[in-house]
Amino acid sequence: MATRGTNLPRLGDFNQRAVLDAIRRHPEGISRVELGQLTGLTGQTISNITRRLLDDAVVGEGRRITAGRGKPRTLLQIRPERWHAVGVHIDPAQLTVLSLDLSGRVRARLTDPTPDVPDPEAVVRQIATLATEAVADVEPGSVLGLGVAAPGPIDADGGRLHRPPQLPGWQDVALRTDLHRATGWPVLLDKDVTAAVTGEHWSPEGTRGDFLYLYLGSGIAAGAVVNGAVHRGRTNNAGEVGEILTTRRPTSGDPRQHGKLHSTVMPGPLVRRARAAGLLDPRGESEVPAAFAELCRLADTGDRRAVRLLRTAATDLSVGAATLLNFLDLDTVVVGGPAWPPLERHQLPVLAATLPRLMVAHQQVQVRGSRLAADGAAQGAAALVLEHFLAPRASGLLME
Amino acid sequence: MATRGTNLPRLGDFNQRAVLDAIRRHPEGISRVELGQLTGLTGQTISNITRRLLDDAVVGEGRRITAGRGKPRTLLQIRPERWHAVGVHIDPAQLTVLSLDLSGRVRARLTDPTPDVPDPEAVVRQIATLATEAVADVEPGSVLGLGVAAPGPIDADGGRLHRPPQLPGWQDVALRTDLHRATGWPVLLDKDVTAAVTGEHWSPEGTRGDFLYLYLGSGIAAGAVVNGAVHRGRTNNAGEVGEILTTRRPTSGDPRQHGKLHSTVMPGPLVRRARAAGLLDPRGESEVPAAFAELCRLADTGDRRAVRLLRTAATDLSVGAATLLNFLDLDTVVVGGPAWPPLERHQLPVLAATLPRLMVAHQQVQVRGSRLAADGAAQGAAALVLEHFLAPRASGLLME
Repeated sequence: MATRGTNLPRLGDFNQRAVLDAIRRHPEGISRVELGQLTGLTGQTISNITRRLLDDAVVGEGRRITAGRGKPRTLLQIRPERWHAVGVHIDPAQLTVLSLDLSGRVRARLTDPTPDVPDPEAVVRQIATLATEAVADVEPGSVLGLGVAAPGPIDADGGRLHRPPQLPGWQDVALRTDLHRATGWPVLLDKDVTAAVTGEHWSPEGTRGDFLYLYLGSGIAAGAVVNGAVHRGRTNNAGEVGEILTTRRPTSGDPRQHGKLHSTVMPGPLVRRARAAGLLDPRGESEVPAAFAELCRLADTGDRRAVRLLRTAATDLSVGAATLLNFLDLDTVVVGGPAWPPLERHQLPVLAATLPRLMVAHQQVQVRGSRLAADGAAQGAAALVLEHFLAPRASGLLME
Repeated sequence: MATRGTNLPRLGDFNQRAVLDAIRRHPEGISRVELGQLTGLTGQTISNITRRLLDDAVVGEGRRITAGRGKPRTLLQIRPERWHAVGVHIDPAQLTVLSLDLSGRVRARLTDPTPDVPDPEAVVRQIATLATEAVADVEPGSVLGLGVAAPGPIDADGGRLHRPPQLPGWQDVALRTDLHRATGWPVLLDKDVTAAVTGEHWSPEGTRGDFLYLYLGSGIAAGAVVNGAVHRGRTNNAGEVGEILTTRRPTSGDPRQHGKLHSTVMPGPLVRRARAAGLLDPRGESEVPAAFAELCRLADTGDRRAVRLLRTAATDLSVGAATLLNFLDLDTVVVGGPAWPPLERHQLPVLAATLPRLMVAHQQVQVRGSRLAADGAAQGAAALVLEHFLAPRASGLLME
């Protein structure tokens, strides 16, 4: 494939996104001059783009400020109420549905356990109900659409899940079409980890610059922002890291799974280890999410074996993270996903202490827990919808 | 950091590079209309850019063709003689110095063993001599500069090698300044694997589109072209993959090195294994490169144990490659580097058979040996110099 050039229409989209992004990140208001400084664009370009955004009522003019002897500057502010999007995250353990306004603020957030019995049709109905509820108090015409984050692999072009290992029993589900029919909104489908990276990249509470993102849910995945853009991969299925080998020795369970990242740091394997060690009732039959919560509570109360179990898993996670950091030459790691919040207290210090020692070219590495916690993927899915309409072709994902 | 917009001057650079690239890839000539189709640029933009390139004598007008009843079209061709660059690859075993013309053709190629005794000053003199020889028959004013590919980690800003593990005894060598003084040319320094990826991406004999690149030299590294651009990393040190764990069990040697990619697939460890197995004289004291060549010759003659040793190493290499392919969601792997040519015959079929089974989201994966063979890094280093002058800011690397 030849390198393609960039014509003005595509350039316009790109620049409009950069300007809108800068305005959104300054809820207190930002002047046109400051926008020029931040984005590197000329005054004329800034003026054209902001006029268009004002015409569309996406931004509004706020107060005027006079600094020194210069001309007074009018501050531009995002109009958060102008547009909304709904974000859905189908985690095997929990459905999260939330509405996001244009500023990136979460307006409403609802969760429900994901049904155990595989029943995609029921889940679609459940999502439609929750989504309607999530935007019950906003102007109906302001809802741009619904973004869905689901476990991979996804068929991004067809808007389908073929046979996601994390959702056993889901076979060839046309999620995008089904949700479009059920809600009437435009619908977009993305992989959970990519949506979570998008959320972290997009949210005012997220992370600026390039970073590696470790996603801990029922499965493990990783994503990255590289050269300022979320890495998506050839088929939008980037992020499969569960097969990365760790230093862990085989102990029990399926021998083929041993020593791999997905068999050491996820809730399921952690619960199995805790049961095998007698930390949790070995004959316990409670669901993994409840048993995992119990294990984390034990660690919170200072149970040394529980703490050691979680810290050891964090060492394994460090090996996986270092593999990717050394390859990409990045210096920032963000950890998030549904399973992360109860682990953060026990695992973040281990990651921060272990990772610098595993770096090859440089020892500098910053580790942080995502401030979006378990909501990154749902926020990212909603953000993708906002971007799709405000800056066409931002992600390249198709909409139903 | 805010997302920055793109002003016209930057856009111009980008588009000029796209056009020049398309012309270069059509040595038989290409019309302006075809350039527009290939790059997606408007006729006016193509016309402006090609006029500039004609004025600079970087391209020339060739024959006119008349197709159907349309207006005759004049074909544009690169003028290969207009500019040259010298590329140097400092591999711990061998120095490669070559000259490249604007078409990407190698004009002259010289190699020398890298001295065993660490003596960076002598190497600088040696490179200067070889480089002068490599452009002895071209117009002196047409040499744009010299690009150097060296083992990492590199200090790209300072143009220095601090303490490269692959070049023991080299401490804080100001390679860029020293070579600039020794040759009088502008000099640019890049990491070996990144230069090799650049060579593969840039050369008419290379690989189009996105790909993962496995670099086999005295050390192992990996790089990638992602979204059409060579991935460089935050400090230009992307590509460290030697620490990736493989399924190999510890057998001998330094126990801390066991099971890691750099201890299983590189010439040094392969020679140690071959000696331990009695395949090569266990008390052999020949240098690794000679012993490695002997091992490959043994395999070429059909020695089953030698073949098995190389094939097993290829299985390990597949595990490392799969780790990166699954994370990035790419479907093309190119293997190259100084150690690759004698291995290709034995390892390529193993990689091609093993990799699809290790893919998580999709089974499609194409594996090929680089047609640039051992010369990728030297060609890439020269290509970086050409790009630096013809399309400023292409790599972001600094020049002395």
